[in-house]
Amino acid sequence: MKIESGMLRDFARGAAFLGTGGGGDPYIGRLCCAHAIQVHGSPELISLEALADDANVFSVAGMGAPTVLIEKMFSLEEAHLVVSKLESFMGRRADAIIAAECGGINATLPVAYAAMRRLPVVDADGMGRAFPAIHMVSFNVYGVACTPMVIANEHGESVIIEAASAKAAEELGRPLVVQMGASAMLSCYPMKGAEAKRTAVSDTLSAAYGIGRAIAEGRRAGTPVEALLGYLRTTAYYRHAYLLFDGKIVDVQRETTHGWVLGRCVLEALQGTGARLEIQFQNENLCAWRDGQVVAVVPDLIVVVDRETAEPVTTEGLRYGQRVSVLGVSAPPTMRTPEALAVFGPQAFNLDHAFVPIEVLATAR
Amino acid sequence: MKIESGMLRDFARGAAFLGTGGGGDPYIGRLCCAHAIQVHGSPELISLEALADDANVFSVAGMGAPTVLIEKMFSLEEAHLVVSKLESFMGRRADAIIAAECGGINATLPVAYAAMRRLPVVDADGMGRAFPAIHMVSFNVYGVACTPMVIANEHGESVIIEAASAKAAEELGRPLVVQMGASAMLSCYPMKGAEAKRTAVSDTLSAAYGIGRAIAEGRRAGTPVEALLGYLRTTAYYRHAYLLFDGKIVDVQRETTHGWVLGRCVLEALQGTGARLEIQFQNENLCAWRDGQVVAVVPDLIVVVDRETAEPVTTEGLRYGQRVSVLGVSAPPTMRTPEALAVFGPQAFNLDHAFVPIEVLATAR
Repeated sequence: MKIESGMLRDFARGAAFLGTGGGGDPYIGRLCCAHAIQVHGSPELISLEALADDANVFSVAGMGAPTVLIEKMFSLEEAHLVVSKLESFMGRRADAIIAAECGGINATLPVAYAAMRRLPVVDADGMGRAFPAIHMVSFNVYGVACTPMVIANEHGESVIIEAASAKAAEELGRPLVVQMGASAMLSCYPMKGAEAKRTAVSDTLSAAYGIGRAIAEGRRAGTPVEALLGYLRTTAYYRHAYLLFDGKIVDVQRETTHGWVLGRCVLEALQGTGARLEIQFQNENLCAWRDGQVVAVVPDLIVVVDRETAEPVTTEGLRYGQRVSVLGVSAPPTMRTPEALAVFGPQAFNLDHAFVPIEVLATAR
Repeated sequence: MKIESGMLRDFARGAAFLGTGGGGDPYIGRLCCAHAIQVHGSPELISLEALADDANVFSVAGMGAPTVLIEKMFSLEEAHLVVSKLESFMGRRADAIIAAECGGINATLPVAYAAMRRLPVVDADGMGRAFPAIHMVSFNVYGVACTPMVIANEHGESVIIEAASAKAAEELGRPLVVQMGASAMLSCYPMKGAEAKRTAVSDTLSAAYGIGRAIAEGRRAGTPVEALLGYLRTTAYYRHAYLLFDGKIVDVQRETTHGWVLGRCVLEALQGTGARLEIQFQNENLCAWRDGQVVAVVPDLIVVVDRETAEPVTTEGLRYGQRVSVLGVSAPPTMRTPEALAVFGPQAFNLDHAFVPIEVLATAR
């Protein structure tokens, strides 16, 4: 399947949904993609299975605080700088491009870059959502080396990091990104096709497109949130999908620090029942409490959408008085294994709960 | 000339003097050097003129806060990691090793590493003293590119930085070094023999040895500070050498922050005249005020020595009650040109004075 210009609006919207609050404004990613396709043509979206075992697969992603990304945009030049640096450092040329995270701008950027390079983009990523740190991907959980990793900025400056672990790569990379203005371009986890097949979360770019399309169709029918939930329930991974809360935002605390957007958001029920939902985020939404009880927690997805249009709201876009619906959605099974939870389960974010799948939490209520 | 084990005590002491308060405890550097020479033999100290124009010259240095260096030591393994990474990244093999700064441990480390590699070490460096930042070297002032530059830590982790300028390399490298525990190994300014000849400050390692030997001889005669001043006055660069103050330390403020040791030290005259000297430092001593009047300022050298033994006192070694002599010494002429002052003159340290050579300040008093 080719990714055509006409699909980008839905694709970017679905990617924003899977961004679970993070991943940056999808509008920027969509424009970047549309321009690349206009200039270079549509890239092929290929399945994981279609990858040759010895294919050289390279990722590309933005790293930093989404609040900064609004003002300090990415360009494909930086994307090319990180990937080509990594190619020459490894003595390999890319045969395909893969998304590290299928959320927000990091879903659209690899598509745009694949178009520019006239390479296929793989219908897969390292999480089926978005996460705030480099080591929080299935690639790492299941044994692909994170480094060598390249970080570059808009001045053409680049850094090649070789670290002892993905977490060490994150710890060395983050202060660099802060120094680069809290937003930079990244290529890491250079891998072979066989490694991608073994570790990636499959079919996530097409899922993003499907999610965006379901929202668009729901809008035409006047029931976008219902349509969105209905579509999610037909998917392989996201089939446990719940409306966690319907309310208006009454408090937002947000701080851009250490290269992330950290904060909390409180919602109050519209019906005047006094019910409250609180969400904690670090770029992405991490945990939701309804009246003090956990109703969803990472790695499951917590997504805030506009209650009229189902447009996903990013954490930097949360505003006092917004009327929103909050959805809780199951993460892909490979993201819920004990090995995976050790890397991006609640404890990895210093949350004081064990992971409980959203479908179990829903039944318990 | 070969650098023999028997020379190391004087060499390290002289290097501590040229460290102008920074560069770390010379004892560590001396032990490292002695061990390398014992295992690998004495390295040849060659003059700048002896370098072939197309020789590949690599530097090696420690970067960080001297307060940390006392507890987190360097090893030659890290030195080899940074140089060999840079060699393979550039596709060149080192023909000679050069010191970036002939101060403290950064003077002895290149000697030890040259011994290990069985390569000559050049009798020259990038400043004829020590400075707290990567861009503050004659190599940068006179046009040698700082990057590619490699930084590595004791876990075998390494980072290759390519930056638009030496200052940008400093700005990208410093937070990395902080992340690495405020002390890491560095190789930068990879250069050709012709570039070294054009930009380096010559004969500084042998000057360090001469200074250390003069102190030792002075001790035997019971007049080490006088012997030191006498020797300095016979050298090419350091011939304007003054005793700025004789006193005891009555106040030290010191903070390890942003990867440096920052602070101030106040001395009171021993004779009870009430005269005071204040020194401001950032790893190295930057400026000295006697009763509010500037008596020496960077790039000229300000060195605190024990008043009985003339042993150099590093900024992390300054203690309340110490009785010390403070010496002011002229910097090499290439370090005092307008281009040089733009990089490491008083303004580069946010000091509110124009540079006035120490011999002029001395005459004005």
